[in-house]
Amino acid sequence: MESETFTVLFEPDGRRVKTSYGFSVLQAAKKAGVSLRSECGGRGVCGKCKVIIKDIGAVNKITEIEKKYISGEEANLGYRLACQTKIYGNLTVVIPQESRLKIRRIQVEGLEKPIRLNPTVKKFHLKLLKPSLSDIKPDLERVFEALPKQNLKGNRFRIDYDVLKGLPEILRRRDWDITVTVWGSNKIIDVESGDTLDRLFGFAVDVGTSKIVGHLVDLNTGETVNVKALENPQVEYGEDILSRLTFAISDKGNLETLQRLVVDAVNRLIAEACEDAKISPSHIYELVVVGNTAMHHLFLAVQPKYVTLSPFTPAVKDEINFRAKELNLNMNRGGIVTFLPLIAGFIGSDALADLLVTGLYKLKKLSLLMDIGTNTEIMLGNFKEILACSCASGPTMEGCHHKDGLKAVGGAIERLGIESNYEVWYKTIGDVKPVGLCGSAIIDVVAEMFKCGIIDNRGRFNPNIKTRRLRGNSVKEFVIVWGSETATGMDITVTQKDIDEVLLAKAAIFTGCSILMKRENVRVKDIEKVFVAGNFGNYINLENAKILGLIPDIPNEKVTFVGNAAISGAKMALVSRRVRRVAEALSKKVRYLELTVDPDFNKEFIDAMFIPHKDLDRFPSVKQLLQS
Amino acid sequence: MESETFTVLFEPDGRRVKTSYGFSVLQAAKKAGVSLRSECGGRGVCGKCKVIIKDIGAVNKITEIEKKYISGEEANLGYRLACQTKIYGNLTVVIPQESRLKIRRIQVEGLEKPIRLNPTVKKFHLKLLKPSLSDIKPDLERVFEALPKQNLKGNRFRIDYDVLKGLPEILRRRDWDITVTVWGSNKIIDVESGDTLDRLFGFAVDVGTSKIVGHLVDLNTGETVNVKALENPQVEYGEDILSRLTFAISDKGNLETLQRLVVDAVNRLIAEACEDAKISPSHIYELVVVGNTAMHHLFLAVQPKYVTLSPFTPAVKDEINFRAKELNLNMNRGGIVTFLPLIAGFIGSDALADLLVTGLYKLKKLSLLMDIGTNTEIMLGNFKEILACSCASGPTMEGCHHKDGLKAVGGAIERLGIESNYEVWYKTIGDVKPVGLCGSAIIDVVAEMFKCGIIDNRGRFNPNIKTRRLRGNSVKEFVIVWGSETATGMDITVTQKDIDEVLLAKAAIFTGCSILMKRENVRVKDIEKVFVAGNFGNYINLENAKILGLIPDIPNEKVTFVGNAAISGAKMALVSRRVRRVAEALSKKVRYLELTVDPDFNKEFIDAMFIPHKDLDRFPSVKQLLQS
Repeated sequence: MESETFTVLFEPDGRRVKTSYGFSVLQAAKKAGVSLRSECGGRGVCGKCKVIIKDIGAVNKITEIEKKYISGEEANLGYRLACQTKIYGNLTVVIPQESRLKIRRIQVEGLEKPIRLNPTVKKFHLKLLKPSLSDIKPDLERVFEALPKQNLKGNRFRIDYDVLKGLPEILRRRDWDITVTVWGSNKIIDVESGDTLDRLFGFAVDVGTSKIVGHLVDLNTGETVNVKALENPQVEYGEDILSRLTFAISDKGNLETLQRLVVDAVNRLIAEACEDAKISPSHIYELVVVGNTAMHHLFLAVQPKYVTLSPFTPAVKDEINFRAKELNLNMNRGGIVTFLPLIAGFIGSDALADLLVTGLYKLKKLSLLMDIGTNTEIMLGNFKEILACSCASGPTMEGCHHKDGLKAVGGAIERLGIESNYEVWYKTIGDVKPVGLCGSAIIDVVAEMFKCGIIDNRGRFNPNIKTRRLRGNSVKEFVIVWGSETATGMDITVTQKDIDEVLLAKAAIFTGCSILMKRENVRVKDIEKVFVAGNFGNYINLENAKILGLIPDIPNEKVTFVGNAAISGAKMALVSRRVRRVAEALSKKVRYLELTVDPDFNKEFIDAMFIPHKDLDRFPSVKQLLQS
Repeated sequence: MESETFTVLFEPDGRRVKTSYGFSVLQAAKKAGVSLRSECGGRGVCGKCKVIIKDIGAVNKITEIEKKYISGEEANLGYRLACQTKIYGNLTVVIPQESRLKIRRIQVEGLEKPIRLNPTVKKFHLKLLKPSLSDIKPDLERVFEALPKQNLKGNRFRIDYDVLKGLPEILRRRDWDITVTVWGSNKIIDVESGDTLDRLFGFAVDVGTSKIVGHLVDLNTGETVNVKALENPQVEYGEDILSRLTFAISDKGNLETLQRLVVDAVNRLIAEACEDAKISPSHIYELVVVGNTAMHHLFLAVQPKYVTLSPFTPAVKDEINFRAKELNLNMNRGGIVTFLPLIAGFIGSDALADLLVTGLYKLKKLSLLMDIGTNTEIMLGNFKEILACSCASGPTMEGCHHKDGLKAVGGAIERLGIESNYEVWYKTIGDVKPVGLCGSAIIDVVAEMFKCGIIDNRGRFNPNIKTRRLRGNSVKEFVIVWGSETATGMDITVTQKDIDEVLLAKAAIFTGCSILMKRENVRVKDIEKVFVAGNFGNYINLENAKILGLIPDIPNEKVTFVGNAAISGAKMALVSRRVRRVAEALSKKVRYLELTVDPDFNKEFIDAMFIPHKDLDRFPSVKQLLQS
């Protein structure tokens, strides 16, 4: 019976998913990609994942835990907690409005791949023999002897000095019944009284130039328990990488200031995620961080000066492990911080994470991977070889352009179109009154203005267009939404400067793509797949991205959006030692191309400043559209 | 020619020593055991080791360095710096009074054994290839690649996080010419610009219950560069171990208070030793510490509560390594602190160091080792097995009894005798007016008073003795030195309380010896050697020690005084990795006997409260003396 599979239908989405006997409805919902709230990761302590079960015979009986959150009236209507409801047969589940996830503006999740759980940090519950006058072994020896030794490989166990200090009391608090946390093969990082096997968490962090995203992960299940995100507070010292690095190296203490900002932000993410999930930060034993090379050096306060000067060598690119307390990170005192390895130049472990998630490095045929953000990484390759470059694309493509508000749950325009009469339609996140434009809408607005002739192929406004939306004399702007319709009462507009910024960004990105292809002697038709990662990923209008000339002119079916793959890759490394070995190998394998010293860079960049490109033949589908 | 050996005669001592071509006079003086000042360890920067060379043809010419310290007039008289003078032939050297070592009251040195240099910390001078656009390896990888890898044993190099932070600047400061300091097989703890191979130092520390002794050691030569000592500032919280432990566990924060005191003291020793020798503390890369179990737990601030409760198990006894910065020790920031392994109960790494120095663990025949101090450790055994116990003997036997003043260079009575007319003769350290009694004189005074009948075999004053030196009615005291002869103008006396303390201490020590012998079924005549270590070692009067009943009645020629062997053993571990492996094996091999739970303890102790013992047959030579 246990090998049977059942089908679960989720309404109102209408999505079906196959699942096995005994799986929870929450697990099925995740597999189906259905939006369902859960703040505790399925531990039965938040009560947010309420669903309505239509076939009560196909699930377990309501549990005592559920009765705390579900009223008698709700129970009569079939309400249950998804995390506590086990699937015993085919089933229809209705997700009520109040249990739907509120949509966040920033992409905090990426494509997730199933992975075998084998985290670097493990817990062992041990019952030790008490010392006696005939057995006077020291406390620590007693612990060492009881631990499994298969992973030692000739090494010895070692214990964190702070853990050792309190060891005698902890061993005796519950009569020599303890739980030992071991990192790697031999490093004891925590010893607790009693059985705490169920409290084993990790935290994955993507330190982006603009945003910092953190995922709290249950290392017993691999499930993400909670997700938090913040603007990178370093933006105070510059939106782009180079201004921040310039600040960091300009005066003593600046580097530490930037480090402090990002560490404080990560501490805030940890605190918020733990509070929501009712988990103590002391049960987070490892923090896996990804970021580009600049973010890496700034996070670690490693001198970044020579990353900015030719030949742009980082101080270190191998995986780094150090103690959480060395950075005052708000987690277990003996916990370990792991920064995944970098590739080269500004291409960091975020790009490496993209490779892990997409599996590009395993594919036979050539693929292109673009991780679009304030800094954009591009990789081209397959199982044999991978070539990579990075471009400073600026913050334009990422997040909201006009107004900020990372934690707001709605109001950003995520999609729009301009009719032939120059009227604009749009859709906001959360279907509320608009406050500004999302990254995806930024692409739409320039592409749409170009399609209907409001701007020319160099992005200049056409003064002959007759619509009151185009206003101003010497300095023109186009009104996207009238103040009467916005949440703020102010018009939402696009200026020449806005358009120029978009063109600069897309030109930088496209230049990276075309130089990589040139160096590898690859044409667009040779590319089997394009993976697009980044903070707008899921909402981008592919046609408009091609019209703008942001991505190569490739059939839609070859394109896969992978969202924030960086954080997904960090989580993979958090839960799997094998993935870390792959990451390490990849870090050495990927070859790096320094774009700024490429002889074709300037010409390619200037040609790419046109919409879609100076050479229309490189965008045949757009050429056809324009001619039709 | 270089294989020739020469004889050097040191005057006025009249000691001769064989030495090889090119050795320095300072090295020869050390080998001869001649007292010669040298504050910089032979580096030519203190100018204290002035000697007069009688055969100028048998040495090198005066160097530029020497001319800084030796006037023209002195040069004419044959004055030279011993450290700069190389021996090319047979030679007579006169050591002038001003170059003689001042005698310290506390024993800061012990028996030294020649040992092959192979310290755990090593330096490598490397010249790296600069990065270029065709060679963009990260900085750290460049360092790793250039380091010798023979000791890696499958591990990887690791770098201290703080060292990594500044690595890029250091590599480029002298054009990729660097010196890397590696601890153990793979731990990079420092990277410096340029060639600093000659600045590689270690510090050995003996944390005694009463005194802390520190030796600054040049790890390139194994030579002791400077020696410093201090009273253990923890005495403020109790002279004996148990009062300090009771304080430590009685309230939160007390443990850290005691730790802070000893760490501050060690920092002071380091600072003073380095200042004298003109060495930067940042060139001290390893600190090797020895101490008994209580001092160990207090130094590390590891919960010592269960060391005081049956079955008296320590938290840890293996060698511990941790970073100097975790304790804020004033040495290289990446430096390592190593506490040598303990044995069991209160028998710590100081006792283990005694074993290393005496080589008892290698001897075929049975030997007894007594390390007499505030806490006394006793070991009995040979190459096959060793049994050990510890006794709380109190501070009476150690250092000065009446007055304190650890850094005073003279004035303590180190030897005395009482004539049949009850008159007292004495000898002070430095031959100056007396201020008090040394540990060795304390033994003398009780033994001598017993011999001439001033006290009986229970230590009671004989009221019938006719001398004005015995004074007082109900509370009696014996005047050792009249105020007219002392430096202070006050009489130096011995009271009943003083005598009782000596008897308690010697009874505790002798009880340890006799119970060990009983358990091993050993009689005094079976013992081939007795090693006596401790702070009075070199000055003790063996006959009086036997009359007092402090040590078993054994022929004088079988007794060897080894001084402060604890610090010598710590230095052996500092300069030799092999010695550390031996220490580790010994820590596991020595069996521990808990005296306080031994069924014979009380009776043995009471019997030992007599002078020399209740059972005179156990001291046949004393019995004979008394009957003669």
